[in-house]
Amino acid sequence: MNKNTLKQLWAEGRPTINGWLSIANAFTAEIMAAQGYDSICIDLQHGALDYQAALSMLQAMRASGVVPLVRVPWLEPGIIMKALDAGAYGIICPMVSTPEQAAEFVSYARYAPLGSRSVGPTRANFSAGANYVAEANGEILAFAMIETAEAMRNLDAIAATPGLDGLYVGPADLTLSLSQGRLAPGFDREEPEMIEALQRIVAACRQAGIRAALHCGSADYAARAAGWGFDMTTVSNDVRLLAGAAEASVKRYRALTGAGAAPAPVPKGGY
Amino acid sequence: MNKNTLKQLWAEGRPTINGWLSIANAFTAEIMAAQGYDSICIDLQHGALDYQAALSMLQAMRASGVVPLVRVPWLEPGIIMKALDAGAYGIICPMVSTPEQAAEFVSYARYAPLGSRSVGPTRANFSAGANYVAEANGEILAFAMIETAEAMRNLDAIAATPGLDGLYVGPADLTLSLSQGRLAPGFDREEPEMIEALQRIVAACRQAGIRAALHCGSADYAARAAGWGFDMTTVSNDVRLLAGAAEASVKRYRALTGAGAAPAPVPKGGY
Amino acid sequence: MNKNTLKQLWAEGRPTINGWLSIANAFTAEIMAAQGYDSICIDLQHGALDYQAALSMLQAMRASGVVPLVRVPWLEPGIIMKALDAGAYGIICPMVSTPEQAAEFVSYARYAPLGSRSVGPTRANFSAGANYVAEANGEILAFAMIETAEAMRNLDAIAATPGLDGLYVGPADLTLSLSQGRLAPGFDREEPEMIEALQRIVAACRQAGIRAALHCGSADYAARAAGWGFDMTTVSNDVRLLAGAAEASVKRYRALTGAGAAPAPVPKGGY
Amino acid sequence: MNKNTLKQLWAEGRPTINGWLSIANAFTAEIMAAQGYDSICIDLQHGALDYQAALSMLQAMRASGVVPLVRVPWLEPGIIMKALDAGAYGIICPMVSTPEQAAEFVSYARYAPLGSRSVGPTRANFSAGANYVAEANGEILAFAMIETAEAMRNLDAIAATPGLDGLYVGPADLTLSLSQGRLAPGFDREEPEMIEALQRIVAACRQAGIRAALHCGSADYAARAAGWGFDMTTVSNDVRLLAGAAEASVKRYRALTGAGAAPAPVPKGGY
Amino acid sequence: MNKNTLKQLWAEGRPTINGWLSIANAFTAEIMAAQGYDSICIDLQHGALDYQAALSMLQAMRASGVVPLVRVPWLEPGIIMKALDAGAYGIICPMVSTPEQAAEFVSYARYAPLGSRSVGPTRANFSAGANYVAEANGEILAFAMIETAEAMRNLDAIAATPGLDGLYVGPADLTLSLSQGRLAPGFDREEPEMIEALQRIVAACRQAGIRAALHCGSADYAARAAGWGFDMTTVSNDVRLLAGAAEASVKRYRALTGAGAAPAPVPKGGY
Amino acid sequence: MNKNTLKQLWAEGRPTINGWLSIANAFTAEIMAAQGYDSICIDLQHGALDYQAALSMLQAMRASGVVPLVRVPWLEPGIIMKALDAGAYGIICPMVSTPEQAAEFVSYARYAPLGSRSVGPTRANFSAGANYVAEANGEILAFAMIETAEAMRNLDAIAATPGLDGLYVGPADLTLSLSQGRLAPGFDREEPEMIEALQRIVAACRQAGIRAALHCGSADYAARAAGWGFDMTTVSNDVRLLAGAAEASVKRYRALTGAGAAPAPVPKGGY
Repeated sequence: MNKNTLKQLWAEGRPTINGWLSIANAFTAEIMAAQGYDSICIDLQHGALDYQAALSMLQAMRASGVVPLVRVPWLEPGIIMKALDAGAYGIICPMVSTPEQAAEFVSYARYAPLGSRSVGPTRANFSAGANYVAEANGEILAFAMIETAEAMRNLDAIAATPGLDGLYVGPADLTLSLSQGRLAPGFDREEPEMIEALQRIVAACRQAGIRAALHCGSADYAARAAGWGFDMTTVSNDVRLLAGAAEASVKRYRALTGAGAAPAPVPKGGY
Repeated sequence: MNKNTLKQLWAEGRPTINGWLSIANAFTAEIMAAQGYDSICIDLQHGALDYQAALSMLQAMRASGVVPLVRVPWLEPGIIMKALDAGAYGIICPMVSTPEQAAEFVSYARYAPLGSRSVGPTRANFSAGANYVAEANGEILAFAMIETAEAMRNLDAIAATPGLDGLYVGPADLTLSLSQGRLAPGFDREEPEMIEALQRIVAACRQAGIRAALHCGSADYAARAAGWGFDMTTVSNDVRLLAGAAEASVKRYRALTGAGAAPAPVPKGGY
Repeated sequence: MNKNTLKQLWAEGRPTINGWLSIANAFTAEIMAAQGYDSICIDLQHGALDYQAALSMLQAMRASGVVPLVRVPWLEPGIIMKALDAGAYGIICPMVSTPEQAAEFVSYARYAPLGSRSVGPTRANFSAGANYVAEANGEILAFAMIETAEAMRNLDAIAATPGLDGLYVGPADLTLSLSQGRLAPGFDREEPEMIEALQRIVAACRQAGIRAALHCGSADYAARAAGWGFDMTTVSNDVRLLAGAAEASVKRYRALTGAGAAPAPVPKGGY
Repeated sequence: MNKNTLKQLWAEGRPTINGWLSIANAFTAEIMAAQGYDSICIDLQHGALDYQAALSMLQAMRASGVVPLVRVPWLEPGIIMKALDAGAYGIICPMVSTPEQAAEFVSYARYAPLGSRSVGPTRANFSAGANYVAEANGEILAFAMIETAEAMRNLDAIAATPGLDGLYVGPADLTLSLSQGRLAPGFDREEPEMIEALQRIVAACRQAGIRAALHCGSADYAARAAGWGFDMTTVSNDVRLLAGAAEASVKRYRALTGAGAAPAPVPKGGY
Repeated sequence: MNKNTLKQLWAEGRPTINGWLSIANAFTAEIMAAQGYDSICIDLQHGALDYQAALSMLQAMRASGVVPLVRVPWLEPGIIMKALDAGAYGIICPMVSTPEQAAEFVSYARYAPLGSRSVGPTRANFSAGANYVAEANGEILAFAMIETAEAMRNLDAIAATPGLDGLYVGPADLTLSLSQGRLAPGFDREEPEMIEALQRIVAACRQAGIRAALHCGSADYAARAAGWGFDMTTVSNDVRLLAGAAEASVKRYRALTGAGAAPAPVPKGGY
Repeated sequence: MNKNTLKQLWAEGRPTINGWLSIANAFTAEIMAAQGYDSICIDLQHGALDYQAALSMLQAMRASGVVPLVRVPWLEPGIIMKALDAGAYGIICPMVSTPEQAAEFVSYARYAPLGSRSVGPTRANFSAGANYVAEANGEILAFAMIETAEAMRNLDAIAATPGLDGLYVGPADLTLSLSQGRLAPGFDREEPEMIEALQRIVAACRQAGIRAALHCGSADYAARAAGWGFDMTTVSNDVRLLAGAAEASVKRYRALTGAGAAPAPVPKGGY
């Protein structure tokens, strides 16, 4: 089985940058996989895509050498195992708030006797190299998302879950939950209480000997987070990168052509 | 039938900015259609997409108020008419090098007695408003692409084709063809001979009372082209915008995290 | 965020008519959305479609101004949140038989602190207008389906669930369950016991200050149900409308052409 | 190879009714194939669908015993042969206006030595029964569409094309072309000049010993056309049947619920 | 409703052979359905496919007369009911380890009053013949997979679950679980302890009056298993059959052409 | 641009084996690409697939190191250029019967000044390595199919077409055409006249300094053909390999289980 380079890089003490895919398209995935990310995650939760799209995206990224991860919609065994059989080298599981949930998650991602993952890596047999079933437990990453006040209360117990590889912070939900709706959700928090929470998570990971990861909106914040000890940071996603670049391009044109140019079309409403 | 706002804007002397879609995805189209373009073209020629994807993209852009155009793969009647039936408000036809080809192209885009387009606007009946068949000849745009030395020799005759709405310049092929392979293809030409050719095309359009359009790589060049009299300029496309933004984001992260960070993965080769 | 017109219409005391989509096709959705329904529901439960098809259908209906709803396959958090992120303005959840299930359902459809919906409205950010996360709890509809004898026993408790917007009656399952299999399932019940049950549900909704909705097979029954106080009625679906119209057309032809015409083909069996 | 029942029915002097598919969906095809049509045509020209959708629709109709036909986008060899390899039992080719075009069309639909169809019936080998290549020339139907004034002038010569099985009338285009744009296009013409044209086509078919077919909007007109001698009539299509039934259903509801009901949503415009 | 021929064959004492589909393609399904299997199972668990692909595969197999089964990803009600509504004539449910799980599984596959399956067989109404809802409980097969040590401990209790039609053995997981990871997973076990386990499962089925089924890698092992009393055996799957035949073909060519031929390409790695 | 290994192997005098894909599926492609073929061709002509499927198949094969080829449906410029932009390293063009057709084909596959291929390698820019436009004319293979009596008469003139890389023999059509329908089409001909024709084609290629390729049904015939001097031989395809292996597996089971087993299901007919 081909080695998971994320594990190797972290073992060398190097922080890694993760890309993020929310568009159901294999060419988008192939484009993103050529831009230098260490790993790329396909988002089955909030991404506008499902399993069949994810499979084609995994296929299109295979030649890139980028480690493919999948965020699943929820702590549901069917889709966790399907994502792994499709060739994912790691699973990010949302909304893990208790050590029981963390243990359940780990069990779905590991073959017996460590867990209850069912054997049948139909595509992974082709994409991941020889000897998959024997080696998968050692290469596949299991990240539990910390994004609720309850999870913060259970932080050390979650981090201590046997077989868990790391904690992945969803700052939008975590902010909403910790502040009980007072703070608007979003990435790249500057509130001291949120930065402190992030640093507590890093500390809990260090203590438990696992990895810490953070979802970021910008490279600058990600670099700061790497400085706080985050082993992996996600920076933006395909949707935001495309929208941002297109918007900037149109604005630049409108600024240069001035008042004589056409006004932007008015959206028609709808749902 | 809903009016083509491009025609209205040009009648007011306003240059317009056109977006460009090469990814086979309706969500990508929906994202792009929210960024302020006056029109957006789905590229069935060089885009990584075909008719069925284009249909879904037209549907996803409908609410935006952006005028939808389609570039067809070649001067072939089947796909020109299918794109129109699907709701395109204009066709950009590549590699039109003679007035005979221009006339043939126009005939496919117009109902009798002006042309030979077959009646059956199956989706356009729903998307384009009432009275489509009676009004389509007046709203649908037909752009012939000028991108060969032969087309430059026939420029005035092509521009004079009855029913043609404009000339659309493909600078990559035009450069390759005019220079007989001496100049590398690409957008945003700075060679005096190429700028002269572009300005000749604008002049030919003015003379014939039709519109001039140019494919550009950057907003800055597009604004210059608007200054030369181009009525419509395309600026970049979804693939380049996404790749550029992602690459810049990764480079920024690598620069900020410095030598300790992971090296970018080495592509595995392949085809 | 664009306002949910269903809420506005009901506040004015107007009953609304809901369309129903069971075919995995965006053009079918676009056609249906042009026929005058106030809202249209995509059926992920019994419809022959899944998430990716539903996304394309939501996109194709966006320009219509019709409120898009989704019925999910079951009380499962992953798909409920995915449907909302894709732009649904309401969720109909099948087989809610206890107040605990109703509360669980509501929690999946509301952001904290009212519920546990995870933040990431990837498409809704584009389709639903500005300020989505802040306003979604107030615009999104949560309908629990009443379709078991157990649900009838828990009717008032379910109706009293905080955050629930309404009860949606599935008469086929409800009939089967209440009669313990004695009555064949189907819509538009005429048995006094079933009409009484429907009216009890309306009363429970009135009492709890929420909306009552009913799945109907015909416009005539729906109009009667509106008279009983149902705020929303679904009338037929795309499959039945198409099959019924086609069958009537063929029968009319066969009747007019008489005995000389061909006999209808004999189906070949199979599964 | 399974026998083409259309040929058998016509040999018995029985007129047949043909259904029409414009929606890219296999379930729609399966539904339509259960309604009693003798044959059903997938419309690759004006239908909102392409080859890959058509393949799935042919598969879904296989068990029905209904004869599957395909209308191709244009007189283009690639798609004609692909439709046949996919299992179509007949091709309807649009816009055949000269005997040369008719002969070219026939050549694409027949194996050597009768034509130039390339051998490789990849799916037909599975769906059409044994011995396909040897028997296909005798079972596959080739219909040329008569829909221009030029075609009417060449009517007898077209009808005499060796290997052609019939003429299929497209009344919308034919009306537009014959009247030079004076008459609005549409089906079910009542103008004496158009009825005369239709009857001339039947006569030309009888003279040449081939079949006459007509595209109709209603069963009533189709039955009249059968009385004029048309062997096959198409009645409406999936789009019109669905839209018509849904619109009638909503109107019925609005009429019954009266002024208190909600007004229909206003479409948002767009393209 | 068309009768389930598996039930008829088993009643006659005949063992049946089941095919297995792991590729998301309707043509693959159509090809496999022409090779003589009694039934074919679409694998939603380990197969590289999801619901929408499975629907198209069910449609493509309908004409074959082969009984269509579906293995679901997990004991989850949403997908079990969707598979049945799509026309599956039987469900194989993985990882059933307790009688409670077996009862829960059965309840999802049966209409009230025997279970809690929701009424709405949208496609089955078209594919399965008349009177579906009334007869489905009697024709649909429910197979629980025995593949853990825990299931073996609960074997008789599981087999006694009312409404369960049979036990289906997954030998890969069962071996891994029973041996606590000592034995490598795989089909066609030769270890005495595993053969004994298989025979115990047959005995438990006989005792409970239900059917025993086994997943096999080869026809030879399947025939042995039939001899042990297994009523149904699956032999290999589409992926293995294709890969095996292609590999043998290439090896044969390389052997015949010898040292002068090209060496096989070296895979590029990746994930 | 990554080098075309086929050219390198042939330069070393090594015959190569080509795989063939007729199923519209990326996983099938990925499976086939792991079996040791030197190159694999996606068949857009007789294969049950179109452009969008081919794109996903090219993506899935990228990591394998196998050279990807595409057979186009016909000598049509639109699809030839789309296949190249999608990353094909060679085009096989059917039914080339004259030197004029051969020259037209070559022109579509080469950038100016050698041909008229339009610049815009949207995916190839990502998959084929750097400097694509400058090097593509030297790496892309153009094979003309020889499969008619007319092509045999023009053999030397076709082979002499500047820029053509090779002739690819379609033995089914060639047999049908040369024998005027007397011989049934098929691969692996044993008639002396056909073997002589094949050897004449090899000789014409040698004379013109280009490559000879042959479509074969078996590895044994391919090896013989390599002995005759064919540089490349295709052996079977995905459809035949799968069907053959499945049929053999079922037959083996039926033979071993004997008369007591179930009879194979009777196909239901249909089209």
